[in-house]
Amino acid sequence: MPEHYDSLETRDPGEREKSLMAALPGQIAHAKRNAPGWSRILADVDPQAVRDRATLTRLPVTRKSDLPSLQKAARPFGGLNAVPAAQMGRIFASPGPIYDPGGSGPDWWRTSRALFAAGFRAGDVAVNTFAYHFTPAGAMLESGAVALGCAVVPAGTGQTDTQVATIADLRANAYIGTPSFLKLIVEKADELGADIACLAKAAVGAEYLPPALRAAMKSRGIRVLQSYASADVGMIAYESEALEGMILDEGLLLEIVRVGTGEPVEQGEVGEVVVTSFNADYPLIRFGTGDLSAVLPGASPCGRTNTRIRGWLGRADQATKVKGMFVHPAQIAEIVKRHPEVVKARLVVDNPGGSDRMTLRCEVRNDSAASLATAIADTLRSVTKLRGEVILANPGELPSDGKVIEDAKTYG
Amino acid sequence: MPEHYDSLETRDPGEREKSLMAALPGQIAHAKRNAPGWSRILADVDPQAVRDRATLTRLPVTRKSDLPSLQKAARPFGGLNAVPAAQMGRIFASPGPIYDPGGSGPDWWRTSRALFAAGFRAGDVAVNTFAYHFTPAGAMLESGAVALGCAVVPAGTGQTDTQVATIADLRANAYIGTPSFLKLIVEKADELGADIACLAKAAVGAEYLPPALRAAMKSRGIRVLQSYASADVGMIAYESEALEGMILDEGLLLEIVRVGTGEPVEQGEVGEVVVTSFNADYPLIRFGTGDLSAVLPGASPCGRTNTRIRGWLGRADQATKVKGMFVHPAQIAEIVKRHPEVVKARLVVDNPGGSDRMTLRCEVRNDSAASLATAIADTLRSVTKLRGEVILANPGELPSDGKVIEDAKTYG
Repeated sequence: MPEHYDSLETRDPGEREKSLMAALPGQIAHAKRNAPGWSRILADVDPQAVRDRATLTRLPVTRKSDLPSLQKAARPFGGLNAVPAAQMGRIFASPGPIYDPGGSGPDWWRTSRALFAAGFRAGDVAVNTFAYHFTPAGAMLESGAVALGCAVVPAGTGQTDTQVATIADLRANAYIGTPSFLKLIVEKADELGADIACLAKAAVGAEYLPPALRAAMKSRGIRVLQSYASADVGMIAYESEALEGMILDEGLLLEIVRVGTGEPVEQGEVGEVVVTSFNADYPLIRFGTGDLSAVLPGASPCGRTNTRIRGWLGRADQATKVKGMFVHPAQIAEIVKRHPEVVKARLVVDNPGGSDRMTLRCEVRNDSAASLATAIADTLRSVTKLRGEVILANPGELPSDGKVIEDAKTYG
Repeated sequence: MPEHYDSLETRDPGEREKSLMAALPGQIAHAKRNAPGWSRILADVDPQAVRDRATLTRLPVTRKSDLPSLQKAARPFGGLNAVPAAQMGRIFASPGPIYDPGGSGPDWWRTSRALFAAGFRAGDVAVNTFAYHFTPAGAMLESGAVALGCAVVPAGTGQTDTQVATIADLRANAYIGTPSFLKLIVEKADELGADIACLAKAAVGAEYLPPALRAAMKSRGIRVLQSYASADVGMIAYESEALEGMILDEGLLLEIVRVGTGEPVEQGEVGEVVVTSFNADYPLIRFGTGDLSAVLPGASPCGRTNTRIRGWLGRADQATKVKGMFVHPAQIAEIVKRHPEVVKARLVVDNPGGSDRMTLRCEVRNDSAASLATAIADTLRSVTKLRGEVILANPGELPSDGKVIEDAKTYG
């Protein structure tokens, strides 16, 4: 049984980086030429100049949270699509609402590499329990499995009795879906006395996988591996049998940025996952997913040489209300920008005695003036229209968890 | 706007018939060579000899009701598939259970012709409310709409609020689904005050379409046309703007047979829909759908020259219980076969005074002997292990509604 999906996975990292950088100007030019949304967003960008990460960093980040308003102004995809919607074939709908395209080429969302890493092979019979209605999750994983040569049962979520009967009838050996639904199926099979010992592998995602659940499945002969994908980007990263973080998909360029900004964090720090994808139909240039993660240093023992990340570590949407007013991470970023002495800032919001309070903790350079705190407090008030205390800290003192706004309010 | 999907639709009927007959030997040979199930079922058949309808009539009918046992013996498709399941890509599950394949070629179920007749065109935005989970309905219509160049929202059934919001947001102009769910969506839009005036056409199926509902939708600017498809065969027949019966799809060979037999009924009589399909992956040779219909004589005013049928007229599964024992249409066919004087028979089961009673009404040739009724009653008892009365009738006296067993029992 082959260990890797293709030779891209085991490339020299320098070669991969060179190849991504070489593809960047073409993709940006394509997006500007064929997608009116990108043409506007990247109006000032010369595609041919974007040949390294430092230059890429100067391009604006377009966030998932921007999509509802972009799309409202230009249905269905905010002009970010480079081919017409009808030509791609499918329009999915997520809460927001956010509309996402689905193309019909083989493995349009690049999920087959992750399924391969989870042990999926041609001839497998896979029950796909991700939903197909409105959300693209079902179609995303189905197209990858079919591209691998698997037979897929488009089962969707629910109907647990039928799930069990289908697995038993067809001797299905593979599961695709959430970890919690896998647990429900296994429990239902036990309850019905149905033989589903055929089930040997599971590719799970979309929610937290408790280690105890993975262990319990392993003891039943089901190997569970996770992946991390999103409706707009497709596959982002996946586990391999090495079980050390998640390996980045080959079709993406990843950055981890400080929440609310477009600036990369230090290596290993938690920040927002920003990707540039090379999909020709729906190019995404510096797309802020709103998810938090961090790069895991080193290479995977499985032989795959791509960057590893720590998986999904939460949401970057840290807007919170203070005295009835919203405060956004972008406002904290603005404050940091106005004071070059500030390396990093974190707004802590609590409510002692039931009254909201803001404290802005700032890591500052060692040579900063003592008057800096007062100046920052003025800026804080000017930007947020709210008063708050400023506490200076030394570099490295603030937690490195990707949080720019920490909501520590308690109720009751 | 073009009126016809292609020139096949307006062919001279003789030319169509010649083309179907010319394709028959090749399809039978393909099925026998590549599908072990057909190889067994058609063991005695010389494909090259099957070049006309009379010869085709001598081939066995394989019924939808045979699939559960055929499939139980050979998962997943009873050996009726000519390419491996994993190569086709998808396995659907219907109650029975019956497993149906889904291929990935464009318009694998031949639904785009029917959608075209319903007014669907490239660039349309269609909300597809047929379910995608387990059943192939959603995928069947989606693939046809995508092949036409429509953008499809894979909405599935339910979530009526989201359906309305999506139609309004995307200015969807087309609906695919059941008539009753269309009614629910329109009512929900009224309740929410949502503007879905964009909706102009609907392709409906899978259940009865009340004429009043069609009229109500028309008065709102939504043109509703029906089609008739099945999970195994794909598209069978569809309405055009002429609204005179349903026009047979170009990819099928249709027979209407007397229920329980493989013998064609007289032109215009109601019987079971038996089709031979030319799908290379899943060839179906004389496949009994279990549905009742009848040929509607004449040609459609819309210019399409193919055979018309009266649509779905009920189920041919007329097995019923008499004094606790099942009686099947095939048993009635057996009785008819043993008495060449009998043209047609109909078993009426009722329960006067709460006790089950069988009456076999037989159309017989005018020159039949008076003793015939007694002889048939003996055969009835021998075949069903039940006593029943036999009443002789003249040719043409029995109703022509496709019923071989009429269950007239009343309760309470």
